[in-house]
Order: sequence, then C-alpha cells, then structure tokens
Amino acid sequence: MRKLLLFVFFSLPGLVCAQHALVMQTDFGTKDGAVAAMKGIAFGVSPTLAIHDLSHENTPFDIWEAAYRLKQTAEFWPAGTVFISVVDPGVGTERASIVLQTKSGHFFVGPDNGTWTLVAEELGIAAVRRVDEKLNRRAGSEKSYTFHGRDIYAFTGARLASGKITYEQVGPLLEPKVVSLPYERPAMKAGGLQGTIPQIDFHYGNVWTNIPDTLFNELKPAFGDKFLVVICHDGKEAYRGVMPYVRTFGDVPVGSPLLYLNSLLNVGCALNRGSFSQQNGLSSGGGWTARIERAP
Amino acid sequence: MRKLLLFVFFSLPGLVCAQHALVMQTDFGTKDGAVAAMKGIAFGVSPTLAIHDLSHENTPFDIWEAAYRLKQTAEFWPAGTVFISVVDPGVGTERASIVLQTKSGHFFVGPDNGTWTLVAEELGIAAVRRVDEKLNRRAGSEKSYTFHGRDIYAFTGARLASGKITYEQVGPLLEPKVVSLPYERPAMKAGGLQGTIPQIDFHYGNVWTNIPDTLFNELKPAFGDKFLVVICHDGKEAYRGVMPYVRTFGDVPVGSPLLYLNSLLNVGCALNRGSFSQQNGLSSGGGWTARIERAP
Amino acid sequence: MRKLLLFVFFSLPGLVCAQHALVMQTDFGTKDGAVAAMKGIAFGVSPTLAIHDLSHENTPFDIWEAAYRLKQTAEFWPAGTVFISVVDPGVGTERASIVLQTKSGHFFVGPDNGTWTLVAEELGIAAVRRVDEKLNRRAGSEKSYTFHGRDIYAFTGARLASGKITYEQVGPLLEPKVVSLPYERPAMKAGGLQGTIPQIDFHYGNVWTNIPDTLFNELKPAFGDKFLVVICHDGKEAYRGVMPYVRTFGDVPVGSPLLYLNSLLNVGCALNRGSFSQQNGLSSGGGWTARIERAP
Repeated sequence: MRKLLLFVFFSLPGLVCAQHALVMQTDFGTKDGAVAAMKGIAFGVSPTLAIHDLSHENTPFDIWEAAYRLKQTAEFWPAGTVFISVVDPGVGTERASIVLQTKSGHFFVGPDNGTWTLVAEELGIAAVRRVDEKLNRRAGSEKSYTFHGRDIYAFTGARLASGKITYEQVGPLLEPKVVSLPYERPAMKAGGLQGTIPQIDFHYGNVWTNIPDTLFNELKPAFGDKFLVVICHDGKEAYRGVMPYVRTFGDVPVGSPLLYLNSLLNVGCALNRGSFSQQNGLSSGGGWTARIERAP
Repeated sequence: MRKLLLFVFFSLPGLVCAQHALVMQTDFGTKDGAVAAMKGIAFGVSPTLAIHDLSHENTPFDIWEAAYRLKQTAEFWPAGTVFISVVDPGVGTERASIVLQTKSGHFFVGPDNGTWTLVAEELGIAAVRRVDEKLNRRAGSEKSYTFHGRDIYAFTGARLASGKITYEQVGPLLEPKVVSLPYERPAMKAGGLQGTIPQIDFHYGNVWTNIPDTLFNELKPAFGDKFLVVICHDGKEAYRGVMPYVRTFGDVPVGSPLLYLNSLLNVGCALNRGSFSQQNGLSSGGGWTARIERAP
Repeated sequence: MRKLLLFVFFSLPGLVCAQHALVMQTDFGTKDGAVAAMKGIAFGVSPTLAIHDLSHENTPFDIWEAAYRLKQTAEFWPAGTVFISVVDPGVGTERASIVLQTKSGHFFVGPDNGTWTLVAEELGIAAVRRVDEKLNRRAGSEKSYTFHGRDIYAFTGARLASGKITYEQVGPLLEPKVVSLPYERPAMKAGGLQGTIPQIDFHYGNVWTNIPDTLFNELKPAFGDKFLVVICHDGKEAYRGVMPYVRTFGDVPVGSPLLYLNSLLNVGCALNRGSFSQQNGLSSGGGWTARIERAP
C-alpha cells in the first residue's frame, strides 16, 4: 500500500505538465507545414511539453536578425527553457549542430552559425555540446538531409526540455565558445555615445540602438533633457535632430520625436504615434550608426 | 500516511494543468520577439498555464478593431478565462490599467482606453479594479516604461489565470464602468433596419453589419425572401442591391450576392466565393452605414 | 482508505494533460478572431487538451493546398492526434462532415470535399464516420450555419482528442472512402521519371515534385550524378537544365541549381540560397509537370 502510494507520488512529475518550455524560432513562415511537423515531433517526445513560438517570420537566411530576436526574448523565460533556432542557410553542411547552455540556465539548440552571438554574450556561456546525431535524431530520418529543424533540433530540444535526456546526453563537450557575428560595440567617444542600429522596431518604426541604459547613464540624463541625435549610413549623415529624453511616447505631442529606453533598456528614437524610421528613411544593420550627445 | 495521501490529493490541482486560459491580443505582430517575451513572463508565473493567442495582427493603434475582436471571441471561451489586450497608443501615460470582470465570469486585463467597449456591453460589467502596479509588476521592470504588455499585463493576467492571486488582489475597486468608444446602435427606422459596418470579414471580403438576428427578426425573414440593401459612406450611397436571405453561401450561384447571419448572428452581405467588399469598393468603420428592408 | 487511493490513482488521467493533440488548419488567417473562437470551444471541452496549429494561412478555398499541408505534417504527429481542417467553400451545403480514421491511427475532422485526398492515400483509410450533428454540435449554435469550424469541428475534434467521446460516438459509419481530388501519379516513362509539381516550397522558392525517393531510386542515383530536368506548363517547356543530385543545398556553389530529396523524401529542384521558382518563372498545380532523366 505504501509502495503504491509512493509510486503515485513520485510518478506524478512524469504525468503532469512538463516544467520546462520549448520555444521555437525559424525562418520557415507559418504558411506551410514545416513548423507543424517540428511540433509534431516534439509532441511525440512528450505530450505534456509546453511548446511555444518565438517567431517563424525571421527574414530568410538572416542570422543576425535571429540572434537579435533571441536577445529580445530569452531572458524573459525562466531558467531551464530550451530554445530552438533554425535560420540555417548551411543546413546539412559542416557547420556544427550544438546545444549551448548559458550561465543563466537557458539552453539553445541549433546550428553554430552566429545565431548565438548575442545570447552567449549577454547570458554567458556555461558549456557547449555538439549534438551526437547518432543518438539524437528521430528514428527513420536517416535519408533526410535538409530538415534538421525537424529531424534533429525539435527532437533533441524536446527530449532535453522534457527531461528525457540530460544535457550531458546531448553529446560531447566542445570548447566553451560559439561562432560570433562581428559588430561594433557601443562606446563613449569625445563626450558622446556611439552605437549601431541593430534593429528597427519595424512594426511601429522606432529606431533601436545598441546603447544600453548603463552607458547612457554616463551622460547623467534626466527626463526632459534634450539630446542631439546623429544617424549615419556608411559614414554619411542620414538624420540629425534634437529631441527630449522622456519616459514614454505620450510625453511628447503626437508626431514629435523622442528619445527613450526601449523594452531592452537600450536607447531608442521614436515619434509619438508615427514611424521615425519611415519619416526619416532610416534602416538597420551593417553601416548604420547612431551618435547621441547632450544638445548644445 | 493519511496525511501524505491527503497532501497528494489536495496538491494535485496545483501540479496539474491550470484550468483557466490566458488569451492574448496585441498589435505587435509576430515577426519580432515582443509577444514571446510576454509569454515567457506568463510561463514563468505558471508553467502549466494554458496560453493562447487571439491575434497579434491588430492594426497598430486601432482600438476599435481590438474591441471588435474581443466581442468576436470572448463568449466562446469558458468563464474564468483571462484576456489580455494590448493596443495601447498611450502606454505609460495616465490612462488606467485595469482588470474588468464581466457578469459572464471572464476577466479582461489592459489599458482602459476603449478596448473593453463591446465586451462590457455584451457580457455586462461585474466589477472593475485598477491594477496596483506596486504589487502586480514583474520584478526588475521598474526602469521599463514602454512595455506594460510584458511587465504588467502578462504578469498580472498569468497570476490571475493561474490562481496565484485572487481578483481582489489585483488592486482597488473602481467605479463599475469602462471608457467606451462611441458608435451608432442598430435600430428599426421607417420600416427598415439601420446599422453600421463595424468590420469587414476581410479575409473573404464579407461585409458585416452590427444588426443582430433579434432585430432582423422584426422583419420576419424567411430563407429565400429578398431584401434591399443600401450601404452609404458619409451619407453618400456606395452600394444598392437586392439579394436573397439564405442560410449559407452555397445557397446562391457562385459570384451572386446574399444576405446571411454571420458567426456572431449579425446580418452580413457576401458573394458566394467572391469578395463583396472588394467588388463594390466598401469598407468599415466611421461613416459607413447599412440599411436593410424588404425588397419592393 | 484504499478506495480513496484508487480513486486518486485512476482519476489522474482525467486530471493531467491529455495525451492526444488537436491540430488545426484553416484558411481563416489569424488577423481576426475566428481561430481563437475555435480554440475557445476546444478549451471549453477540455482545459488540459494540447491545441496546436498546422497553419491558418491556407489560400482561401484552395482545397488541394490544404490536402498537401496535411500530407506534409500528419505523419510526424503520433497516432491518436486529431486534425481539423476547415477549407470549406461549401460550408452549410450538402457536403458531408466526417471524421476519417487512418490505418496509422490518426483522425481527421472536417468537410469531405477533397481535403483528405492525400492522407487517405498515404496513411490508409481505416474507417469513415459521418458527424452526427444532433449529438456533436456545441450547445446554442443551432442558428449558426456558416461556421462549422467552430460549432461542429472544433467541438467534435476536442471531444474526440480528449476522450470525451469515442470514435464510435462521432456518428454512423459510412463507406470507407473519401472524396478524392484527381491528380497525375508519378511514373517511369521511356527511361525518365514523369511527375507533377504539387507545391512550391514558396518561402524559399524550391520546386517540389511528387516523385518519391522509392521511384527515383530506379534511376540508381548517386550523390554527384547529373540529371536533366524538364518542366512543362500545359505541355509547353518552361525550364530545361542539367543539375547534380546532392545531399543538401550547400553542396553546390551559391546560386547554382541542384536536385535533392526534400523533407518528404520527394525529388525537388532548388538554388543554393536562391529561388529556383522565381528565377525560372515556375509555379505549381494543374498543368505543371516535371520530367527527370539521367543527363546525356
């Protein structure tokens, strides 16, 4: 009787919903069945696994965008969450398939092609393991070479998230580093802040820099203070303007520019209820830089 | 032994999947990581919470559309469901953050900016509480002013849906009313029905009025009866035509117009396998009205 | 005491997460509330049911596309999974509402309008039952004729997936066959393989044929071998070219064409990091054929 009870008690964690989520990012879109096939594999591993989407609308082959979306999202999920990211122009070639464990306790499953640049930096690398594709590949997928997202990553990520395998069982330890995409770090230069524009908050047109609040604070900003913003593309000035630093969009009139801390606590430029990037013809990525200094 | 058993028994509800869903609507789109960050916060509150999407493709800043989508959806979820809606052009300004409890037992979390107009009317207001942001805000979000969807609404909604807080713990009671967007009520006038066009069923092009079946029944319609439909924009006639009232699209030939009761039991105009709105250049919102009377 | 224990033990399956998933496909899009209304009904049937999306971006009324997406997805979900597919231009007319059980143990719920053509063929028909709409319709939906997805299919699919009804309780057995869309089978003809182009892998522009690896193997292909590909539209040559058969995209230079086995182990044509269909003006569906033979 006691044994039966203990059986019930200790088998509960296996019966109830898994405690770790599996979060997926791809550049597959959701118009076809590819993402649903990945979820089917994950569900087959564990029917109680919480399966969620980051996004599947990543620009095809844009590894930097994928890296930025992970930075924007991962820290808001609890430790133990397993992320899959499949933006993988080199699928089936010699780039390694890895599982990165960060010091924050998150796991990241996918190709080691630069996707992990920003989360590795911000959350810290605890360990990197190569996926042993002999052990961690769905049965019957041996003849499939072009859909690692389904055959290896969804399968392995789901097994890890649901506790079917330990992190050690993923495969052999590699050196604790990942392929990193190069980018310019934000810095204080000649009394002003110099940074890049890693992404446009495209849905609203806000321009996000990579200048964090900690660096911005060196300018000792107070709400209402005015700043000069100069944005350049390939060294040529694309925008120059003065705007107040405010808490939120509605602190300036509709249509007016403003400087603010975005949801990642990086400095951003916006128009209240308008598109700063569209009005000024600005974009993001290689060659786009921003300089911020106190207005004269 | 008995105590252990009772512990197992009574702790089950906490271990198994939550019984209330959290349903999210935003105008963020799903291309970036904002929605996934909200879900991460909700999952962190309760890993067994059922998290679902209404839509994230709401036209940016279009509060009326958000209100209509809630009307289209909420009643089909069971009592206890918690809805978050973040179409919030005034984020961080003085508009209140509230949780509306309707008489139907649903909860609605977000800014009190008109979003709740239609569900408040149709489901009835049971109570309104202001979110106490001291108690109901995710830890570490004090410096973030522009993403209440993540920092306050997802956090509070998830805590309420998972039973981590009671409705009373949301914050202080307000007067039982919400900010309401103005719109014209449907009515019988001079032997015909007068209404508005709150939304196009844009995916198929069907034109939906706000005239409910209960009002339509005053014309004593039978399937096959013919009706005159006149649609105006800012008082100018945009469409005039006679069509039969039928059960479903296939009851008229392909390409023919028809009058029907849509999925909300409101009167609609459609073409069988065609776009009524596109063929006739019709749209929805302010200034668009529909008149329906028996064909002469 | 023992009885209480047994009660706890045997009631666990009802308390914990359901073991079968409900997977939904529609042509509704996700901009409005229709899909969320369907999920609300399903959640109301069973709050622990795993509800997933195949896609809701199916081209409106394109039954063939829906059939192909099911083929692309269903086999990767475990037996017992219940699929709903609502691409239903004839909603409310005399087409039957059925639940197909395949020999693989999957269930398919929706209109019998050709949607099940490919899964019936590939997974095998075990049985077909007509949905008894007297028993299997959500309460209060009697006046609604145009949203079977919500009122009948989501309700019935959720009840079946969660074990609230058995397959027998769906309704009476029909003959074990479904409405099938006509299409040309792949075949070996005059030393070459002749097939159709059922879908473009539109997100990347890869051209997928319906020629399976088992048939392709009759040409005894080895990686690196060269093949002549001729694609015709309505009998007129639209593309002719020689390309190597390789394992994966990166095995040829960027921009070069390649022959490969896609994720369904069907023969496909692609460009490494380019759009084969766009570069060559190719599409899919009726009238598009592909011929593959060893390069001379």
